[in-house]
Amino acid sequence: MDYQKVSSLAKRRGFFQPASEPYGGLAGFFDYGPVGVKFRERILRVWKRHYVLGLGCLELDGALVGPEDLFKASGHLSEFDDPLVECKECSKNYRADQLVEGGSGMAREELAEVLKSTLCPSCEGELSELSAFNLMFATQVGAGRGTKGYLRPETAQSIFQCFPWLYRLNRNKMPLAVSQIGRSYRNEISPRQGLLRMREFTQMEVEHFFLPKDEPSVPTHLGKISLVLVPNEGEVLEIDIESAVKKGVIGSALVGTHLAAAQAFLQSVGIPKESLRWRQHRKDEMAHYSQDCWDGEIKTSIGWIEVVGVAHRGDYDLRSHGTSSGNEFRVPIPGTSKTVERWGLNVGALGKAFQSKAGEIQKSVSEMELAPGMKVLLDGEEISLGEEFFKKETNQESEMVYPCVVEPSFGLDRLFYSILETTWKEDGERQWLSLPRVVSPYDVLIAPLMTKDGLAEKAKDVCNMLLENGIDVFYDESGSIGRRYARADEIGIFHSITIDYESLEDDTVTVRERDSTEQKRMSISSLKDLF
Amino acid sequence: MDYQKVSSLAKRRGFFQPASEPYGGLAGFFDYGPVGVKFRERILRVWKRHYVLGLGCLELDGALVGPEDLFKASGHLSEFDDPLVECKECSKNYRADQLVEGGSGMAREELAEVLKSTLCPSCEGELSELSAFNLMFATQVGAGRGTKGYLRPETAQSIFQCFPWLYRLNRNKMPLAVSQIGRSYRNEISPRQGLLRMREFTQMEVEHFFLPKDEPSVPTHLGKISLVLVPNEGEVLEIDIESAVKKGVIGSALVGTHLAAAQAFLQSVGIPKESLRWRQHRKDEMAHYSQDCWDGEIKTSIGWIEVVGVAHRGDYDLRSHGTSSGNEFRVPIPGTSKTVERWGLNVGALGKAFQSKAGEIQKSVSEMELAPGMKVLLDGEEISLGEEFFKKETNQESEMVYPCVVEPSFGLDRLFYSILETTWKEDGERQWLSLPRVVSPYDVLIAPLMTKDGLAEKAKDVCNMLLENGIDVFYDESGSIGRRYARADEIGIFHSITIDYESLEDDTVTVRERDSTEQKRMSISSLKDLF
Repeated sequence: MDYQKVSSLAKRRGFFQPASEPYGGLAGFFDYGPVGVKFRERILRVWKRHYVLGLGCLELDGALVGPEDLFKASGHLSEFDDPLVECKECSKNYRADQLVEGGSGMAREELAEVLKSTLCPSCEGELSELSAFNLMFATQVGAGRGTKGYLRPETAQSIFQCFPWLYRLNRNKMPLAVSQIGRSYRNEISPRQGLLRMREFTQMEVEHFFLPKDEPSVPTHLGKISLVLVPNEGEVLEIDIESAVKKGVIGSALVGTHLAAAQAFLQSVGIPKESLRWRQHRKDEMAHYSQDCWDGEIKTSIGWIEVVGVAHRGDYDLRSHGTSSGNEFRVPIPGTSKTVERWGLNVGALGKAFQSKAGEIQKSVSEMELAPGMKVLLDGEEISLGEEFFKKETNQESEMVYPCVVEPSFGLDRLFYSILETTWKEDGERQWLSLPRVVSPYDVLIAPLMTKDGLAEKAKDVCNMLLENGIDVFYDESGSIGRRYARADEIGIFHSITIDYESLEDDTVTVRERDSTEQKRMSISSLKDLF
Repeated sequence: MDYQKVSSLAKRRGFFQPASEPYGGLAGFFDYGPVGVKFRERILRVWKRHYVLGLGCLELDGALVGPEDLFKASGHLSEFDDPLVECKECSKNYRADQLVEGGSGMAREELAEVLKSTLCPSCEGELSELSAFNLMFATQVGAGRGTKGYLRPETAQSIFQCFPWLYRLNRNKMPLAVSQIGRSYRNEISPRQGLLRMREFTQMEVEHFFLPKDEPSVPTHLGKISLVLVPNEGEVLEIDIESAVKKGVIGSALVGTHLAAAQAFLQSVGIPKESLRWRQHRKDEMAHYSQDCWDGEIKTSIGWIEVVGVAHRGDYDLRSHGTSSGNEFRVPIPGTSKTVERWGLNVGALGKAFQSKAGEIQKSVSEMELAPGMKVLLDGEEISLGEEFFKKETNQESEMVYPCVVEPSFGLDRLFYSILETTWKEDGERQWLSLPRVVSPYDVLIAPLMTKDGLAEKAKDVCNMLLENGIDVFYDESGSIGRRYARADEIGIFHSITIDYESLEDDTVTVRERDSTEQKRMSISSLKDLF
């Protein structure tokens, strides 16, 4: 199935369509329709089962807009850009690395050089100098001059800036895994190919924080999962995660853990193992925060596309936010707690000796290291404070460290698209989505043979019985049974139940299976065992 | 419980905190923490049960950014503003109607007059002229001049512009109810009081479309629901919906239906009946699209606050989008289908007579009413087309009409806040959220008495057994059992289960109930019957 077919299916069956269609669309934005919302919800449910329950993540749902200081600290204001050229004749904008063959692998200087001999592909006009176009959407918060705000370029930053709060909510325990599902924004210069390069997209991310010297090892149940790896040096290989980490093909055990977890998740939502590979980033390809990164790529009709990145971000983000905001983003290293004796002020003695001036003295030393004999200015005169104005204070203090973080980051929209493409089946006239049942938009089609003679009422009774058991039904009474089966097939519903005249007599129904199209007769009371 | 206490509870227990806190916050934006995400999810689950299942809504999840033309058509570019004044001295911005007593009820002219004798409340400086500040967040989409885009001011517009698609997906049937849960944005001049006036907020909306002459009546199961109504004229009254519609207190049956449905939903998530009233908008208070509007208001420590509006928007929105976009937003009126005979072109005859010029003629008449004898320009010369170039065509045509819409629109964040405030209980030292079980962030607390001697392992077995049954557990092993109960109480968990030494011997546990604090001994195997 190719891109055009997916788009046409998506529109016809209510998965998605370009946003603002009646107004000619807004490139890079999409609306999800009734079946698309259900499908997304199902994918998210499976993801949460893997990550929130399976990994014990704390969840966050952060604001989509952040202030300038936040994105200065994260590096996105200075680093998050694409190379831009404009045609001097027709004013069209181009992402420069897409204009030049092999451009995506070039350094900016090299790209600039090659562009000097390149013309506008649209009008053959001369191109402008190469510039850097920041990919964040900016807006103004508040009236008048207001405050500059940006739509977040990755959900991750919401988690990072909340780290001190989340750490406290986790009772100051490490490691700490936090998950977030939410929208992010990248102002792509020229978005193409629908759900594959969007300006608004939904991420499913985990930030898995750990102490640099205490990296969690690969859990037993993930160790034997086998993956196809494409390291940035050396051969493509298929290997289990435990061995890959042991042999150093993957440099970090937690990166290994998340590669295995992601592989397991992707297979469970229908991505065939043979369509999935893990490609390590080249050094010059990595984001500004990244120490190591592996992209989970799915083979589609338009090539291998990235649907998830597993990045080792080191302590880059927490360190940046800690130093930029002046807040404490470090955590104590267990086992380093020591009793530390320090001098403190003897406020009582100060008060007695200096009366109303005592407060002034306290204030002037508040930022200084305290010790007997220290000098302070009082009424323009330097005086020395004797030992009588101090007392010994003991505290428990630990060495502090910025935690490191490993991040699996999924693009929900691309995954949505990839599942449609890879599970699509055709057999002569017949076509269907062979979705795993966990991600089918609905559990079952309920179709009365006719709407008359009480068949529709009977069908609705069956609907209600199933709904009460938490089963999601798709009720359809329009057109021939064959057409209704065909529609259900196109949205990947696994079971179709037909209510006919026999049903009125003996409380049985016909149950059809999507992939085999086999039909069998079942009693209504036993239907819930199908799910 | 007051606003300060809710904020403190929210931060302490992981419900929410101001966004970008380490950077001094961004007024009007919030981050939802681990418990807040669960709580939101539970509220949404109940809402979907009422609206998606109960009402049979189709779901939509639209893009958050739309183009300028969309918001020109919706009226938001010209109408969606607040009165703004700036201090000429200190440059502070104020929402003008909040500066003046009774300002919210004043027309703009009146407000401008009163402001002439008003000084800056901060520095007593002179104020600027009154201006209108548009409340949409603007951004630039794409590089260079790009395209102007706006963050949507209400989720509703996503549904309206998708109407032609949704109508088709609904097999061209009316009425049609569409629901959407998603974020919206209003660039408030001075956001105050946390979750009650946000710049980014989540709406849960339904657009219930119907044919103007075929308004759905109040369904039987909602008719007897009784509400407190505050009409814009006349007395406050408590009345059932059926009677209110019959007596004309509520002018539209579908508005009545949605008042009743909203009342039922709000009570099911814990809002006490006595804290809820429905206030009808004054004519001068209604939004530009509104024909009638009732606000569901909840009594809190800071007064009655609006958490839902039920608006009759007439055909304003579909008509605007239809005429502005040039797309068909009307639907046929059933029963008006007629066979219509029209003249069509006889392309064969044209081709024979005019050869290569035939295409030109076809093009020139494409927008005209066809009839024998009509005149066209050919090579600058006017010619008349005789009857031989036409043929009769018959079509089925119906009268077309713009559907009307009734919209219940909930603010999730305000509801979230209101539930916390109205369900908070204190009894001496003890304090707890008496949440209905359907919206408790977790179903149950699992607490091992100690972590040693296999108690933690036993507790985790109980967790897994419950998780496998779809029960959401909160595992806590830190601190005394009393403190753990207290924490669970503060996030409204109904059942707490303690695993102790006896549990190891006879597979029983202690189950404590939140409200009564009563404890009983139960066997582990019978636990799932609690839920």
